[in-house]
Parts: sequence; structure tokens; C-alpha cells
Amino acid sequence: MCYNIQMTISIGIINESAKTVSEKRVALTPEAIKSTLNKQKEDVVFLIEEGAGVASYNYDENYKEAGAKTVSRNEALKADILLFINIPNSDIIKSIKKGALVISFFNSDKNKDVVEELKKEGLQAVDINKLPRKLSNAQSMDALTSQSSVAGYKAAIKAATEFSRMFPMLTTAAGTIKPASVLVLGAGIAGLQAIATAKRLGAVVTAFDVRPEAEEEVLSLGARFLDLPSFVSSEEKQILSTINQQQGEGGLARKLTPEELAIQKKATDNAVGSFDILITTAQVPGSEPPQFVSAQGVQNMKPGSVIIDMAASEKGGNVEGSKPNQTVVIQHVKVVGAPDLASDAASSASALLAKNFLDIALHFTEKTDEGLTVSIKPEDELAKNMVVNFQAIEKTNEEKGEEK
Amino acid sequence: MCYNIQMTISIGIINESAKTVSEKRVALTPEAIKSTLNKQKEDVVFLIEEGAGVASYNYDENYKEAGAKTVSRNEALKADILLFINIPNSDIIKSIKKGALVISFFNSDKNKDVVEELKKEGLQAVDINKLPRKLSNAQSMDALTSQSSVAGYKAAIKAATEFSRMFPMLTTAAGTIKPASVLVLGAGIAGLQAIATAKRLGAVVTAFDVRPEAEEEVLSLGARFLDLPSFVSSEEKQILSTINQQQGEGGLARKLTPEELAIQKKATDNAVGSFDILITTAQVPGSEPPQFVSAQGVQNMKPGSVIIDMAASEKGGNVEGSKPNQTVVIQHVKVVGAPDLASDAASSASALLAKNFLDIALHFTEKTDEGLTVSIKPEDELAKNMVVNFQAIEKTNEEKGEEK
Repeated sequence: MCYNIQMTISIGIINESAKTVSEKRVALTPEAIKSTLNKQKEDVVFLIEEGAGVASYNYDENYKEAGAKTVSRNEALKADILLFINIPNSDIIKSIKKGALVISFFNSDKNKDVVEELKKEGLQAVDINKLPRKLSNAQSMDALTSQSSVAGYKAAIKAATEFSRMFPMLTTAAGTIKPASVLVLGAGIAGLQAIATAKRLGAVVTAFDVRPEAEEEVLSLGARFLDLPSFVSSEEKQILSTINQQQGEGGLARKLTPEELAIQKKATDNAVGSFDILITTAQVPGSEPPQFVSAQGVQNMKPGSVIIDMAASEKGGNVEGSKPNQTVVIQHVKVVGAPDLASDAASSASALLAKNFLDIALHFTEKTDEGLTVSIKPEDELAKNMVVNFQAIEKTNEEKGEEK
Repeated sequence: MCYNIQMTISIGIINESAKTVSEKRVALTPEAIKSTLNKQKEDVVFLIEEGAGVASYNYDENYKEAGAKTVSRNEALKADILLFINIPNSDIIKSIKKGALVISFFNSDKNKDVVEELKKEGLQAVDINKLPRKLSNAQSMDALTSQSSVAGYKAAIKAATEFSRMFPMLTTAAGTIKPASVLVLGAGIAGLQAIATAKRLGAVVTAFDVRPEAEEEVLSLGARFLDLPSFVSSEEKQILSTINQQQGEGGLARKLTPEELAIQKKATDNAVGSFDILITTAQVPGSEPPQFVSAQGVQNMKPGSVIIDMAASEKGGNVEGSKPNQTVVIQHVKVVGAPDLASDAASSASALLAKNFLDIALHFTEKTDEGLTVSIKPEDELAKNMVVNFQAIEKTNEEKGEEK
């Protein structure tokens, strides 16, 4: 479907915040659209479902001013490229134009049924979870990193909000208030932002991660690195030290064995008792999160302590008893299940996300004499990793009568 | 009423958090009690109403361990000295032992009926609002300052929580997120803490106060000082500049004339439009707060902006339309009425408050051969300022048969 005689590409989004209470982000912002149109005015048409950006303070008039069209959901789903923050459900998938490129956090290794469905509907799926993050031209597409940064910041802010003491030290004529002590488990992107933000607020911050190179990053932020093995017997200490020598794939923590997990949990349970605040960030993409802290660990914390479990999910979290998008009080400890923190800073998160999405979308296009077209080159490193149903693509290309 | 043969003084508190949802603080903490008993074990008995500290994570067992007695409300009200964060109601006042010393934020200049009632009941009232804050021995009693410090910190945290963008600048491969711009109106204790906290979080902070010496304090925190007169006509500018040359009594802002207020409001309404966050802190003790920002000013702010009005009250606030302990959304701007922010960090606030209260209480005692007794010396500078019903005292002293 073309809007001009010159071939253009249409990029569409729907209103995702209308579906869920916890989603406030939008996949495209007026600012990102404007900046793209400044570069490629003739080639791209943006189709935005009415009200899509309201929850992130991006209004229909702002999209129109930026040069986008605000349309009904069905019209938006007729775009050549569709961007979804959350995996679209079957009804939506069925309404998408055949042959369209659908970009989302499909987590396709785990969600094989969705991949199958997309394929069946003749859709080309690009999985952001499979972005080869270390490639230099992938950096500006790294939506997992950008959203984790925002979420990590908000995790520290949420902890400061829920905590009944101040984070910074306060010295008054009547005496001194001690700074809060914060423990961050998992020093990936989210963890490092949480560390930096808690430090900024004046807390004394300690962190831990099984990846050995994390220690240097933690120390460089002015935080301490937790000596986890010191919290268990010397035999168990040996096993924990071994874990520390190993690194997971892709810079992410590998899944630990049940025995390793048990010892790590025991050590962590013992360790957390000396902290006021615990922030856990260990989401393993596509798997249920490892439980680092058991009910015993929660109980070891002092009354009034606060736990922010960023891995809280229906399948459990890093902390036993945490519930997604709920605050439960366990033995006078507030356990906040906060898997959607990026959405709490929806404007910032959307601004970054929109640029990530557009860089991915435009990567899979090609400028020809007739204008801009969707183009996936099987030899392209990004296509190889991220396009999860090549069959569908070829079929579509055949339909279009293009040569490959 | 004595608990030993040796004369002791009993100090009592009730559970104030049970009365109101917004009050989570407690007037005495186990830590402060312990520290007092370490110095004056034989002389002081502490009577704590059961459950008084629960909302600030101070439990009955902690009070008992510290050496206090946990008792019923009626028993607590039989103490020689009573400490109240909130002004006690008539029922409570009637239950207090005759001749007792009652310490609270009475704001006696405005609450003449309460002073009258206390007098009628033969109670000796000490008004913390009348503390001569500049006296060096009053510093450790300055509960207004300690609570404002905690509240100012929480104001910045609350703004960061409610705001849909990040406070710090964030640089990613996909682009840069601008830091938030924060305006703090009123650079007293609360304002300075809000400035410092927002700065810590990486926001660009501007502040304003009518007191000229505030400018230096604001600049010393690394914030900008708002050039308010630049937002109005040159004639009005002249009037605003005159205000700036004048200082209120006791280091607090003086009440402005209606004309001055109107021009200041107009300038402020114009100024606020360029900020993401507005924090207003201008409570004038005992009076309804000056309205700095009108509905027009709120409307001038961008969608998604956040206002924290620390002066919000039933009588209005610094910002038109703010409601105490409520968040109202006016033209896509979140207006948070937050008069009780110290209570949001109840543990820290209570720790400081307890030391302030105990320093005041013990100031009005005297060690005699028989032990510790309540003693108010009319020539004492603190007594002269803070004891608001001398008549009652003299009557009580006569009853006790003491000579003055």
C-alpha cells in the first residue's frame, strides 16, 4: 500500500497503553518522527493510532505537527513496518497487512508459538531480544539497554520513595542521621544505573554480580563489591568462588546449577540482613528469574527495609514472595515487585525507544530508484540474528515479484 | 505522681499515627530514650502508649529494651511532661494530668482557643513554633528545622517519582536525554534540601526566595537564582526589586502586600512555564500560605510537568488548585499537595524529632536533692518565648507548694 506515486514506506504503531495499566510507553515519539522526516521526508509515512502517546504526554496534535498521520488502529495495522513494545496478541497479528515487517521484543527463543503464528500470517518478524548488541552499528538500536537504564534509575528512586529513612547522611544540631545502605544484586545496565542513582542520593552502596568483570564497573561507580563467599562455610565458599570465574554468554549472567543457586541463595540470605535496601535486577531473558533471596533472607532484613525486585513476574522473581506490580509487606519488609519500571518514566523511555525502533526499522529498508522499500539481506549480520522467520520473507519477496 | 521514692519525671507520648493516615511519626524513639536513660537513669520514666511507634518501625519491644514502659493511652497521659507532634484535641487535653508540661507545635499566635483550653485545664504549654531558633542552646531543639530538612528531601524524591522523565542527563548511542529543569520557590530549610536533592539527582535547578541572603545560599548549592523581575514589565519590575531588598522577621519571609503578591504571582506564572518541575515551600507559620502560582501559571507548564506544593492546606496552598495529600491533574500537569512529607520518611523524621523533643523537655527540668522536677524559670530566654501560659504555671507551682 502506497500513499504517494513515489514508493514510500509506512511505519505504524498502535496505542499499547490502552491495553495494560502498567504500559505507559509509546514506540514512536513526535520528536523522533520529526527527526526522521527531516532526513527522509519523501520516503516515510508514519501511521499513529489515535491516543497512542497520551500516557507518555505525547498527544495526537504533537504527532500531526511532527508530520505523522493519526489514524484508527486498523489503518495503523496496514503499515509496511509495525513497531510493538509488547508482543501483539492473535487478534492484532491477524489484522496486520500480509508481508509487513513486525518489530518487537518477541523473545523468540521462548515464544515459539508467536513466531509460528507470525510465519503463518506471512509476516516478517524482527526480534529485538536477538540484537547482536556488541556490533557497533547495533548500539543505537539497543532498546534493551536503553530501557534497562531508565528502569535502573527508577528502581533507586522507588526505593528512596518507599523507604522511611533518608538516603543521604543528615547532620543536624540534634544529631546525625546515618546514610542508607543499599545492596544491588546484578550489575548489568539496570544494576549500574541503580547503583549510580543511589550513590547520587548519598546512600552507601554495595553490589554483586557473578560476572567477574562487573566488580571493576561497580568499583568505578564508587560502590563496594559484595564479598558473597564470606557469608557461607569455607567448603561452600569454594563453590561460590568457582561461579565467579565463569561468565555467561553475550555479557549476561549464565543460569546457575541448582546447587550453585542454593549456596548463592544461602550466602545472599545471610548477606542481605545488613542492608536497608535491596534492589535485584537479574532477569534472564526468556527464562523464569533466578531466586536469589528466599523468605528467610527477607526475614533477615530489619523492619522498614525495602526490596525492589525488578525481576518480579508471574513465574516468581529474584526474591521469594515478590509479586509483579504489587507491594507486599513481609515481616515488616516492603517487597516491591517492579518489572515495568521503564514505564514509570514513560517519556524518557519512549524517547529512547523511538530512536532504537526507528534505527532498527530503517536498517531493514533500501533506497531504490522507485523510492524506499523494505529490504532484508540474508547475509546482513543483523538480519541473520534478528529476523526470526526467513521463510516468510522469501515468500513475501516472491509475492512482490522482487529478485533476491 | 512519682514512680520511685526518689523524685522522678515521667515523659509520655501517645500513638498519633492511629489518629490520622498522614501521620507516621512518633515523638520519641527507642534510641533517643536509651541515650537519655544512659545519662539520667534514675530520674526519668518514659511512658509510651502501646503501638505508638509502629508506623515508623519502632515497636513496643524496642521501647521496652530501651528502658521505657509501654502503657495504655490513659496511663501515658498521666505523665509529668507530654510530647505531641500534632496539637492534642479536647478529649486528650481533658485527660492530661493537671499541672503537666505539654510540648507541641501549638502555633499559639493563631490557636488562641487551644492556649485558653490548656490554661483552663491547668496545663503548662510549651510552643515549639516559638522557639528562639537563633539562640545557640536552642539549635538542638529546632524541630521545625529538622522536620523541614526531611520534608525538603522527600519533596525532590516525590517529584522524581511523579515525573515521567529522568532527572539526570542520560547519554546513549541512540541519543541524549536532557536533564530535568527544576524550580524551587522558597529557599528556607525545606527549599535548600529540595535544591540539594534535585541537584544530586542530576537535575538543573533554579530557585527563588524574597529574602536577599537566600541568593548566596542557592548559588552555593550549585543552583541558579531566578531573575523573577525579568518576567514582568519594567514598572512592575521596580516593585519586585523593592521586595527583594526587604527581609522578614526571624529569618522567615514576611507577608507581602496584595499588590506585591499580584505582581510576584504574575512574574512567577510567566516563569514557571520554562520548568519541568516546580517545588513550592512557602509555608508562613500560622497563616494561610501565599499563593505564588495561579491556575494560569499551572497552565503555562508543559504537559507532564509536576508540581509539589509543600504548603498545600485546607486554606489553599502556594499553587492554585492544590489539595492537601492529593494529586490533582490540571491541564496535564500533576499537582501534588504534600504538606506532610516529613511523615513520608517517618523513621528519620522521628529520630530527629525525638532528640529535639527531649532537649526541650529536659531544658524545663531541674535536678534537686529530691531528684528531677519540672522547672520553668520566668527569666529564662526559652521559657519567656515558648511557655505560652505563665499564669497556669504559677498556679501549678502554688498547688505544689513550691517557692518561686
